[in-house]
Amino acid sequence: MRLRNKPWADEKLNEFSHYVIANPEEQKGKWQAVFGNDNPLYIEVGTGKGRFITEMAKAHPNVNFIGIEVYKSVIVAALDRVIEADIPNLKLLSVDAADLLKFFAKGEVDRVYLNFSDPWPKTRHAKRRLTYKTFLSIYEDILPQNGEIHFKTDNQGLFESSLKSISEYGMLLSYVSLDLHHSDFEGNIMTEYEEKFSNLGSRIYRMEAQFR
Amino acid sequence: MRLRNKPWADEKLNEFSHYVIANPEEQKGKWQAVFGNDNPLYIEVGTGKGRFITEMAKAHPNVNFIGIEVYKSVIVAALDRVIEADIPNLKLLSVDAADLLKFFAKGEVDRVYLNFSDPWPKTRHAKRRLTYKTFLSIYEDILPQNGEIHFKTDNQGLFESSLKSISEYGMLLSYVSLDLHHSDFEGNIMTEYEEKFSNLGSRIYRMEAQFR
Repeated sequence: MRLRNKPWADEKLNEFSHYVIANPEEQKGKWQAVFGNDNPLYIEVGTGKGRFITEMAKAHPNVNFIGIEVYKSVIVAALDRVIEADIPNLKLLSVDAADLLKFFAKGEVDRVYLNFSDPWPKTRHAKRRLTYKTFLSIYEDILPQNGEIHFKTDNQGLFESSLKSISEYGMLLSYVSLDLHHSDFEGNIMTEYEEKFSNLGSRIYRMEAQFR
Repeated sequence: MRLRNKPWADEKLNEFSHYVIANPEEQKGKWQAVFGNDNPLYIEVGTGKGRFITEMAKAHPNVNFIGIEVYKSVIVAALDRVIEADIPNLKLLSVDAADLLKFFAKGEVDRVYLNFSDPWPKTRHAKRRLTYKTFLSIYEDILPQNGEIHFKTDNQGLFESSLKSISEYGMLLSYVSLDLHHSDFEGNIMTEYEEKFSNLGSRIYRMEAQFR
């Protein structure tokens, strides 16, 4: 998406530090205390404008959710949604996915969602794809044994390279749909992007993969 | 495909036993002698009317090929093609894929092709799919270490279940295309079925997977 410069974004994020955790490295290993319960923790890496994570948090009140989005100018849109919904089991972080180990202890996260991640189609940018082995290694560290990533995209090339990458990593593919919106998968919650592009005729690909 | 009863098929297969090996269990471990060279051996399981294997054999004279098709009424069509082409590096077998261990020694086959295999869409028939774990185990036995299967289909459900099956088996997915005819894959040789259905707009899915 086009990123507008939003100089007031910082200010807004600081104002709502109840929702957008300001010093997340201080919460490493203590996220249950932040939420005030010992429910499982699901994170979305690249949360964008936050529709998916907000709807998920509403639909699953016994799970804690954290939406992670590096671009402050984008996460402010998610913040608006979170302010309006005022859901106790949802927080936001404006940090880089490459730094996740600074913010989560080993096994502290119970599931990782990746939705419509930037495809980085050029081979020389393959390392930036959120399913590249270095990112898988980060997810493996913060997830428990046999932890799962749930990934969907409309980008064929990204899905293909992700299948190879998770296979090469030795992960188990436990679910795969090559046309999610015409599958029997239940409970799909669409992202903003997903609704727009599937309405335009794009296929949505989805997989669940497990570390082993 | 619709299978017509062809009572003369047996007779024809016997007549051309130079092409359709009559007692393949006797050649187990001796296929290099049958071909009279020590070139690699690629087999296609479910060779149908034989267009793929015939074109492959022509394109790769330094590889030996065996097309395997259980239905005699189908393999006679492949035989016609083989008689016409008269290629020294191509043989046919009319046997069941479940019996491959009777006909090939450990590591005797260098690559297995599966093209447009019967999708067996019903869950209760999953064990009949040629990418089901019992078949993968057979291929693993007759292939060398790190042997490969090359698989293509237009059937989305079969491709999805095959991705799961090969992942569960611990195989490495080394190539995947979710739209082969619009990919940069070179040297694709189409089956009869592939040409017909891709002309009608079907997507062709393809993967290469390696035992490890």
